[in-house]
Amino acid sequence: MYKCSLERMKDKISTFSKFGDAGHGGITRYSLSEAALQARAEFKKRMEAIGATIEYDDVANMYATLLGSDPDAKRIVMASHVDSVKNGGNYDGILGVMSAMEVLETVAENDIPHKHPLTAMIWTNEEGSLYPPAMMCSGIVCYDYLPEDIRSKFKFEDMMASKSILDNKSTFGEALEKSGYKGDKKNRISPENAGYYFETHIEQGPILEDNGNDIGVVDCVLGMFNYRLKFFGQTTHAGTFPMPKRKDAFYAASKALVYLHEEIDKLGYPELVYTTGEVVCHPCVHTCVPDYFDFSFDSRHEDPKVLEKVLEIVKNCEKMDWGGCTCKVEKAWNRDTVYWDKKLVSYVKEAAEELGVSHQYIHSGAGHDAQFAAYMLPATMIFVQSKDGLSHCEPEYSSPEHCTEGASVMLNAVLKVDGE
Amino acid sequence: MYKCSLERMKDKISTFSKFGDAGHGGITRYSLSEAALQARAEFKKRMEAIGATIEYDDVANMYATLLGSDPDAKRIVMASHVDSVKNGGNYDGILGVMSAMEVLETVAENDIPHKHPLTAMIWTNEEGSLYPPAMMCSGIVCYDYLPEDIRSKFKFEDMMASKSILDNKSTFGEALEKSGYKGDKKNRISPENAGYYFETHIEQGPILEDNGNDIGVVDCVLGMFNYRLKFFGQTTHAGTFPMPKRKDAFYAASKALVYLHEEIDKLGYPELVYTTGEVVCHPCVHTCVPDYFDFSFDSRHEDPKVLEKVLEIVKNCEKMDWGGCTCKVEKAWNRDTVYWDKKLVSYVKEAAEELGVSHQYIHSGAGHDAQFAAYMLPATMIFVQSKDGLSHCEPEYSSPEHCTEGASVMLNAVLKVDGE
Repeated sequence: MYKCSLERMKDKISTFSKFGDAGHGGITRYSLSEAALQARAEFKKRMEAIGATIEYDDVANMYATLLGSDPDAKRIVMASHVDSVKNGGNYDGILGVMSAMEVLETVAENDIPHKHPLTAMIWTNEEGSLYPPAMMCSGIVCYDYLPEDIRSKFKFEDMMASKSILDNKSTFGEALEKSGYKGDKKNRISPENAGYYFETHIEQGPILEDNGNDIGVVDCVLGMFNYRLKFFGQTTHAGTFPMPKRKDAFYAASKALVYLHEEIDKLGYPELVYTTGEVVCHPCVHTCVPDYFDFSFDSRHEDPKVLEKVLEIVKNCEKMDWGGCTCKVEKAWNRDTVYWDKKLVSYVKEAAEELGVSHQYIHSGAGHDAQFAAYMLPATMIFVQSKDGLSHCEPEYSSPEHCTEGASVMLNAVLKVDGE
Repeated sequence: MYKCSLERMKDKISTFSKFGDAGHGGITRYSLSEAALQARAEFKKRMEAIGATIEYDDVANMYATLLGSDPDAKRIVMASHVDSVKNGGNYDGILGVMSAMEVLETVAENDIPHKHPLTAMIWTNEEGSLYPPAMMCSGIVCYDYLPEDIRSKFKFEDMMASKSILDNKSTFGEALEKSGYKGDKKNRISPENAGYYFETHIEQGPILEDNGNDIGVVDCVLGMFNYRLKFFGQTTHAGTFPMPKRKDAFYAASKALVYLHEEIDKLGYPELVYTTGEVVCHPCVHTCVPDYFDFSFDSRHEDPKVLEKVLEIVKNCEKMDWGGCTCKVEKAWNRDTVYWDKKLVSYVKEAAEELGVSHQYIHSGAGHDAQFAAYMLPATMIFVQSKDGLSHCEPEYSSPEHCTEGASVMLNAVLKVDGE
């Protein structure tokens, strides 16, 4: 068994945390921003130092490859992203890149024999924080392999035209041209040049920590659906309109939210999650009764039958009277559970066992580039324990020891694939 | 008894509805906008046609005065505003200006003898829709007479610097300079030049219509308070964080809103109104549990003891546990009930009786320039029935017959004051 270097991992965490440092423990590192370009330059410098070849594809996905002994063998790719959400933490995304770098560095340092080329990869614009949507460039690269309803959201021209949320004007395509990292379409990861895909990521939840396990052997990305619940009332003046005649859309939505929690919790599925994170209120003026309110409803579970039961409760809201307001339930999107490649999952588990790293099976509740890659290649993921389960925020933290264990597990799983 | 002209009122309604016509039955006529300047020009033209003298003060409040027989008598002022909210209706504000014009036109046409100068007045920027706050220019003009905590919100320099909500850059002061309607500070309405203040307005509620009364004899503007209820939770990822550990600020706020309705409705005050019209959600992303949610809470009632009971319930929210979220209740502002001048109220009632117009006493739930004027002068208001109680929206409607009755009631009440 080989082990990655704790000291080198610590150095990478400290170095990469400076690119986009927001001054209070976290980073804002939008894809293709100055900070993200600094992270890419650091990746390039360190990978060239160990003799890796650097390539870019046409959407600036970046590949550092150590050749193997078999010229016909396909690449084993280890990928993640360097971009973050606004005021995000120092681990989401970048940990997967640092882990891939660590695997290559350990292989180079110890001259570990391998047949397959080993590639550390950076996906461009996973978060979609500045240029929506999330997972943009894995969506583009895996386009031909995606189900039709997902694929339709990732048309190349639409992605190039995606506007900055900051100025609603400059586009992703323009940022790409300016980045200096736009390369050749033929360099894209594909079934022709790659055989296997690994992605290491922080868990972003509290399950590993609560169970005292350092590493998660991820078996799937949970199926999910996303709906909007829209409530229609009547706006009137705050001071002049008697209460019994009001049709208050915010109050209607609040009653519906309480109803949803009560009914869904009765189903009794402990692994089910649902989230109402985004709201719209109109006219949103303190002297007016709201005539419109909507909220997003995102629900995730491995079993589609469970999601169906949840959806039935959500759709019930349309049939109910909410104090004179009506409700419309509209689908935004859904996706089925994506299972990782069973063989790769077993290699990850074996590697963890052989390394003596505490671990458990776990589902991924969040989406990752790996889930698009999985439509194209055998793919899997490795999770690293998150402190307090927090992510997409500055307190996000995973210890250097756990991060290094994650890289070591990936290294040994990769060598198992290589040794087949 | 004198009566105003239905035909002339119809003509004014039709003419003024064109200034800022938004194309589907209503208007957008921000203060000092091109549309508002057209309305002012029309006012000037019609008032000059009957021999009125036109004056402007330093914040473009506009005065059309018919002199009376007594050179020492103070003005009887009839005022309202020509500006509207975004996509407002054809009656809020402008009806009071048209009614004041109608009074002067009827006096001129019939050569009605009067001692006092009679002034039709336009307040600048009552709505504050483009340049906040509402009631800006009555706040400026009545500044010295206002209670300290209200006054502090209307400092002249702050008002001049108020930024357009459209571009967050151009200021009210700049719009004032450009308007061509900026005049002399000495022309401001004041206790030195004015003795009485009347304002006619649509009811903006359904009470008159429900009771079959055309006109409301307004006795006060309701006391009110405005608070923010702020809920603090913890943001986490929508897919990765188990439900029992979540601290969802939106869910907390929803439960609190349901609690507030239940508890406040138990108090059993049919005239009490409360409104939660404005919300803020953070980070407001469909994949994140909200860590912050707040909503405004506006409550109005004549009796301060009733408002105290409501506030007690609102403040209880701070002591309760909202699924792990905390709540903070913060005061934005409050005001006491402002009672209109008893003598003027009695003249309005007598005028309605003598004209045979169906009427009732009514409170004003909304704020109006009259309430600031009332700190400076004896003041009162007259309400005209609103169809379905709707206002600040395009379906806002009052019949020409009711509008003309309102003007006739004001005319005869004004003549009673004049005849003292």
